[in-house]
Amino acid sequence: MTTIKDSVHDHIEVVGVAEDLLDTEEVQRLRHIRQLGTVQLVYPSANHTRFEHSLGVYHLASRALDHLGIDGIRGERIRAAALLHDVGHGPYSHNVESVTHRHTGKYHDDVEELLAAGEVGEVLRANGLDPSRVAELVAGGGKYGQLVSGELDVDRMDYLVRDAHHTGVPYGTIDHERLIRELTFVDDELVLDEGNVQTAESLLLARALMNPTVYQHHVARISKAMLRRAAERLLDQPDLTAAELRRMDDTDLIASLRTTPETEAFARRLDCRDLFKRAVWAEMGDVPDHVVDADHEEVDELERRIADRAGVERGSVIVDVPGRPSMTESTTRVMVGGEMRRLGKQSPLVSALRTAQRQQWRLGVYAPGEETDAVGRAAASVLELDADGALVSDVRHGVTATLDEFSE
Amino acid sequence: MTTIKDSVHDHIEVVGVAEDLLDTEEVQRLRHIRQLGTVQLVYPSANHTRFEHSLGVYHLASRALDHLGIDGIRGERIRAAALLHDVGHGPYSHNVESVTHRHTGKYHDDVEELLAAGEVGEVLRANGLDPSRVAELVAGGGKYGQLVSGELDVDRMDYLVRDAHHTGVPYGTIDHERLIRELTFVDDELVLDEGNVQTAESLLLARALMNPTVYQHHVARISKAMLRRAAERLLDQPDLTAAELRRMDDTDLIASLRTTPETEAFARRLDCRDLFKRAVWAEMGDVPDHVVDADHEEVDELERRIADRAGVERGSVIVDVPGRPSMTESTTRVMVGGEMRRLGKQSPLVSALRTAQRQQWRLGVYAPGEETDAVGRAAASVLELDADGALVSDVRHGVTATLDEFSE
Amino acid sequence: MTTIKDSVHDHIEVVGVAEDLLDTEEVQRLRHIRQLGTVQLVYPSANHTRFEHSLGVYHLASRALDHLGIDGIRGERIRAAALLHDVGHGPYSHNVESVTHRHTGKYHDDVEELLAAGEVGEVLRANGLDPSRVAELVAGGGKYGQLVSGELDVDRMDYLVRDAHHTGVPYGTIDHERLIRELTFVDDELVLDEGNVQTAESLLLARALMNPTVYQHHVARISKAMLRRAAERLLDQPDLTAAELRRMDDTDLIASLRTTPETEAFARRLDCRDLFKRAVWAEMGDVPDHVVDADHEEVDELERRIADRAGVERGSVIVDVPGRPSMTESTTRVMVGGEMRRLGKQSPLVSALRTAQRQQWRLGVYAPGEETDAVGRAAASVLELDADGALVSDVRHGVTATLDEFSE
Amino acid sequence: MTTIKDSVHDHIEVVGVAEDLLDTEEVQRLRHIRQLGTVQLVYPSANHTRFEHSLGVYHLASRALDHLGIDGIRGERIRAAALLHDVGHGPYSHNVESVTHRHTGKYHDDVEELLAAGEVGEVLRANGLDPSRVAELVAGGGKYGQLVSGELDVDRMDYLVRDAHHTGVPYGTIDHERLIRELTFVDDELVLDEGNVQTAESLLLARALMNPTVYQHHVARISKAMLRRAAERLLDQPDLTAAELRRMDDTDLIASLRTTPETEAFARRLDCRDLFKRAVWAEMGDVPDHVVDADHEEVDELERRIADRAGVERGSVIVDVPGRPSMTESTTRVMVGGEMRRLGKQSPLVSALRTAQRQQWRLGVYAPGEETDAVGRAAASVLELDADGALVSDVRHGVTATLDEFSE
Repeated sequence: MTTIKDSVHDHIEVVGVAEDLLDTEEVQRLRHIRQLGTVQLVYPSANHTRFEHSLGVYHLASRALDHLGIDGIRGERIRAAALLHDVGHGPYSHNVESVTHRHTGKYHDDVEELLAAGEVGEVLRANGLDPSRVAELVAGGGKYGQLVSGELDVDRMDYLVRDAHHTGVPYGTIDHERLIRELTFVDDELVLDEGNVQTAESLLLARALMNPTVYQHHVARISKAMLRRAAERLLDQPDLTAAELRRMDDTDLIASLRTTPETEAFARRLDCRDLFKRAVWAEMGDVPDHVVDADHEEVDELERRIADRAGVERGSVIVDVPGRPSMTESTTRVMVGGEMRRLGKQSPLVSALRTAQRQQWRLGVYAPGEETDAVGRAAASVLELDADGALVSDVRHGVTATLDEFSE
Repeated sequence: MTTIKDSVHDHIEVVGVAEDLLDTEEVQRLRHIRQLGTVQLVYPSANHTRFEHSLGVYHLASRALDHLGIDGIRGERIRAAALLHDVGHGPYSHNVESVTHRHTGKYHDDVEELLAAGEVGEVLRANGLDPSRVAELVAGGGKYGQLVSGELDVDRMDYLVRDAHHTGVPYGTIDHERLIRELTFVDDELVLDEGNVQTAESLLLARALMNPTVYQHHVARISKAMLRRAAERLLDQPDLTAAELRRMDDTDLIASLRTTPETEAFARRLDCRDLFKRAVWAEMGDVPDHVVDADHEEVDELERRIADRAGVERGSVIVDVPGRPSMTESTTRVMVGGEMRRLGKQSPLVSALRTAQRQQWRLGVYAPGEETDAVGRAAASVLELDADGALVSDVRHGVTATLDEFSE
Repeated sequence: MTTIKDSVHDHIEVVGVAEDLLDTEEVQRLRHIRQLGTVQLVYPSANHTRFEHSLGVYHLASRALDHLGIDGIRGERIRAAALLHDVGHGPYSHNVESVTHRHTGKYHDDVEELLAAGEVGEVLRANGLDPSRVAELVAGGGKYGQLVSGELDVDRMDYLVRDAHHTGVPYGTIDHERLIRELTFVDDELVLDEGNVQTAESLLLARALMNPTVYQHHVARISKAMLRRAAERLLDQPDLTAAELRRMDDTDLIASLRTTPETEAFARRLDCRDLFKRAVWAEMGDVPDHVVDADHEEVDELERRIADRAGVERGSVIVDVPGRPSMTESTTRVMVGGEMRRLGKQSPLVSALRTAQRQQWRLGVYAPGEETDAVGRAAASVLELDADGALVSDVRHGVTATLDEFSE
Repeated sequence: MTTIKDSVHDHIEVVGVAEDLLDTEEVQRLRHIRQLGTVQLVYPSANHTRFEHSLGVYHLASRALDHLGIDGIRGERIRAAALLHDVGHGPYSHNVESVTHRHTGKYHDDVEELLAAGEVGEVLRANGLDPSRVAELVAGGGKYGQLVSGELDVDRMDYLVRDAHHTGVPYGTIDHERLIRELTFVDDELVLDEGNVQTAESLLLARALMNPTVYQHHVARISKAMLRRAAERLLDQPDLTAAELRRMDDTDLIASLRTTPETEAFARRLDCRDLFKRAVWAEMGDVPDHVVDADHEEVDELERRIADRAGVERGSVIVDVPGRPSMTESTTRVMVGGEMRRLGKQSPLVSALRTAQRQQWRLGVYAPGEETDAVGRAAASVLELDADGALVSDVRHGVTATLDEFSE
């Protein structure tokens, strides 16, 4: 048994296949991938890595398996999936995932090939585990995949508490221990046991508050968009494939950006936190549907047209269109009065989350500080924004969190 | 300056009139009044007192005044009100407040007489403060009363964090420091500054989660109802007035209950945590309006009829009808896009709170464990409950928090 | 299984005999005994009780037993002892223990009679446990008694962390989880495993820092001495025996002090924190040996003579002589290089603790604020103090912690 | 004013010259330098950076200045020094400092040139500050340099608490707020005010416990020694100077190690945590003086001879000789009885620290796992170690912390 000291869960005991997996290159690589990517530019303490998070997820999975009475090879498989659930992440976690996905067709939880190959594959097979079944769990498949990737998964429980610990924003401080103690399977569905409506609500509300405050903070979004743009430029170079980019860690990516002439300006801006500023920050109601739904090529074309109209260089405009908020209601299930109920039905708070998500949505257009005025005006026209309300000169005071690290 | 170490806010500096007030009998008395009354029977660590809470409220008020630039005699008055805001509490805080209120017409924040008299009155006047104006602030009156008693008051900020610290339930862990930094006055209204929609939501959501989990936990409600009943018996005795009861502390009340023959059985049950159990636990939709709205005499009559029908002693039945959840929406205000908006309008989550509150409402009928069946059946009939669903034999598994201190 | 939420250890699972013991009068009584007695007059948040501490000790004992692989009836016996280890405490824990000991010959860990009688005795026997063997463990007897009461016991691990949590003084924040994981038995001695010299040191150093800062803070000592004096007066009354006093809880004692004419003045002073002040506060080197070693009768006589000489009432003088610091070195054992070593030999820090303890020793003479000058001069003469350095007028600035709750 | 959220101190307000300094390249660079270098290989959560630490030191300095009543240009200078005190650090903080020092003659606190040049110099001068006087404070010079770099400096207060927060090892959790409140100047000496012997002790004891557990953990020492060796190889390359190496950040260094043929093996080992193991781990008493005092060239020669005798490659042997523990006693001063006393005189615990430090000293000889036996035997002979006790085969069980991340 290996015992590891963790700042969130204190002592984590790693046993069985997980102990062997720890030493693999794929798992050790996660030490060099920050959990929250560029969020560190907003919350300077947020330097925690996918490695410690993966240990935390493994730990909570073990606790849940003990509680649920799952052991043997099935337990080993789930524990392996928990520890490995993030090995598919590229550098800066989610930040450049959309870029690598466009080229490779793979998201970070598509790890079947990865788990079959290399040291991880060897360790899994040596421990009598089929890599493809572990990969299935990582993707959320099957009854037990819900534990690893689902509405009540241990991944979310760990990251909320861990991100709260490291950013200093307390909203993510859920009662993870209670959540785990109340998990149960009913008809192969993972549900929370009787009397846990608030326990379930707290998990979803914590995320709803962390989202705009941390994960989608506008400075995080701007720096993420810049990093994405820089990664695209990097892929324009002849000697790097998207598959290679996906397997870089944060160190590789930053070092590449710094040493490639086409990206060194971005690298310098990110290194010195000399970021683009918001030229537009618009609510969903002010943005035409065809912009909200624009794909990568259409966004590219919009950026080109905005740059033209504003009379600035093509590289000075970034249009950042988040996906539409999911319209599916929460599928979290909780037992109430002896019957399984969807939390979205049971809880007025949770059913309000969909509306809240839509309301938190913002279109961003970013440009160097001295060009935001010109770009903002051009963007309002090209994007056919409903009101000049979307211009940052008007709305910025409504949206700039005054507790940003740097005032902009 | 007196510096006091606090487990929540670390070092609290007490200066000016507050320093003089500390030594008064009225403030020192708060050391003997538990903040959460009988909640300690559910969460055994919840033994914090109104004294430390009052210091915390004073501390946050001082921080807010510094931030808002309020000083001089006005600041002193507000600081005094913050420290004194709970001196009107009777023993066990809110637990027997309804009993003393029926007899004295006074709630805990009606402190005009109290502040004018005794040592507190002397200290206030010696410091050039008018006790009645301090009392007005305690009651939430005037522009600055909002800071002491209002939707964004420092009272709530302190108790949520403090109750979380002492119960171990994390839901109350708000970002009180950020809340205070974002307070501002606009048109004499206390509001949260731009970019703080989530800050405001978090305060209300924290309370919405703490409420059923802590403050209205069914074991807390049962023991509170038993304490109320015992206090009523005590007032039936010739030698105690309600005004005297109101000025007791926890020690006085428990000692009286133990030594008064008519109440010693209640005292023993509370001391040994040998509590009544739920015979009925019904949702609002299952309870006729006239029961939901019954006043003290009507409840008394209902209890008598239930006891008769069940064939048990009158004292074996407690009907516990919480007030209707307030139907007014949150009046918290936050600046959005340069204009002041009601949070209830701006936030889908907050507007869902009213519905949530209604859904959390429960009618309880309590009886000694061995009589819950008989009392439950009688109550269902007498109270004309819509369904037998309200009988605990049916619903208990749906409502018993499995993390209660003692399973019931 | 009963699961209880604790503010220190989060969720505590109570099973087996412990679960049955929870409901007994003797264990429930601990809810009404503050862990730190009058320390609450220095650190206002220190209102935690022997009940929550006992749960914590039970919890750590369970963890240690799991780790050591001890189960069956032996494990049940140790768990019972852990939960019951403090049922012998009188009101205000250690504060009046010396008084009841003089009359009853019993300290708090002398519980053989107590465990044999009443509900606890019934529960133990019903679970196949011999009360006298449980009492032996509580007194630290036998191989396993070291776990419950010894240098490495779980009692100390819990109280250090818990007192830190509730006072806000961080010095007690040890790594209790690591301590428990490193416990092992070698030749029937409980020792810490290899590589844990610092782990062992940290436990002893934490106590060495908490001692003067919290447990022996001069305001705590003054109020404790006053409470002791009041308890003696109470025992002078015809209708109360020391055995009865020992079984009171905090509520009973305070209520008795308030309602007994001979003690109501003390009660009022304690209630209003209108405490005696230091007239003398002298280091060991300044105090003659016969004073350091004076027994109760001799101290009584010294007080009488000081009062006479100062021309004040007998009741205005309290001489507070702590016992000589124990001169035995720490017997904590830790494995070093495969051999068992005494920590006092291995660790220069731990061997310095004896000297530190002697240096922290202080003789106190206390009197009402307006009489400290007269009493101080009289005491210096009667006690033959070596230097006037012992007079508070000289030394007080050297010893008054400036972070006391109230400046004195 | 810029307000930054910190996971340790919550909200940090940055004003004046510090606000301008934040945006400089030199300060932003600290985001890419881990506070604890390779300690992250032992405590995986320890990924915090010199940037957040510098903010924390700035924050505590501001608190101390407020408390001491120091403002104006003097305050600005000290605040600037606090924020800038670590800009001289090379990659991996202290880990490769000895290497760059050998070549450049500069330690990290030798920043006169650095502060005079570049953006930092511009900002300082624009704010009316002389860079050289700020540099003097960073080096601990002058009366106020004690605040920035001295026995009671805010640097140490921040790092102990921050390292505890991020490693999860609680020993560093000091009461920094009390420390700052008790600082005072007496005769231009920074001292702790009356009644703070324990406050002072706690600071030194915290470090004494963190040192072997965290900073000098053997896995941290091994990886640090490997990194040092790799950095030396890098400097053997023609195209990198030591001055350039010193200005790299962690990203640059790791990227260089990975891409330089002569160092890629080291990089791979560090990346995969495939570290050397201890061949020798010897106490000071077992090591001849000439080895304890060997300089870089002598160590180099010893390594060569050990490799020869063991029949392994020269690169397979690392001899790690820590400096002799400083024999100067603590100069921390605290007021006792109105006079200024050296803590080393006043406190038996602190005076024991010198002995403790000597006892914690260990000579390490490291080699690849499969070669430790051969290297250990050769080293024992070449280094003339007093006993075979120093061979890891004998002592390892005595020194291997069982809570290491990975068992070795």
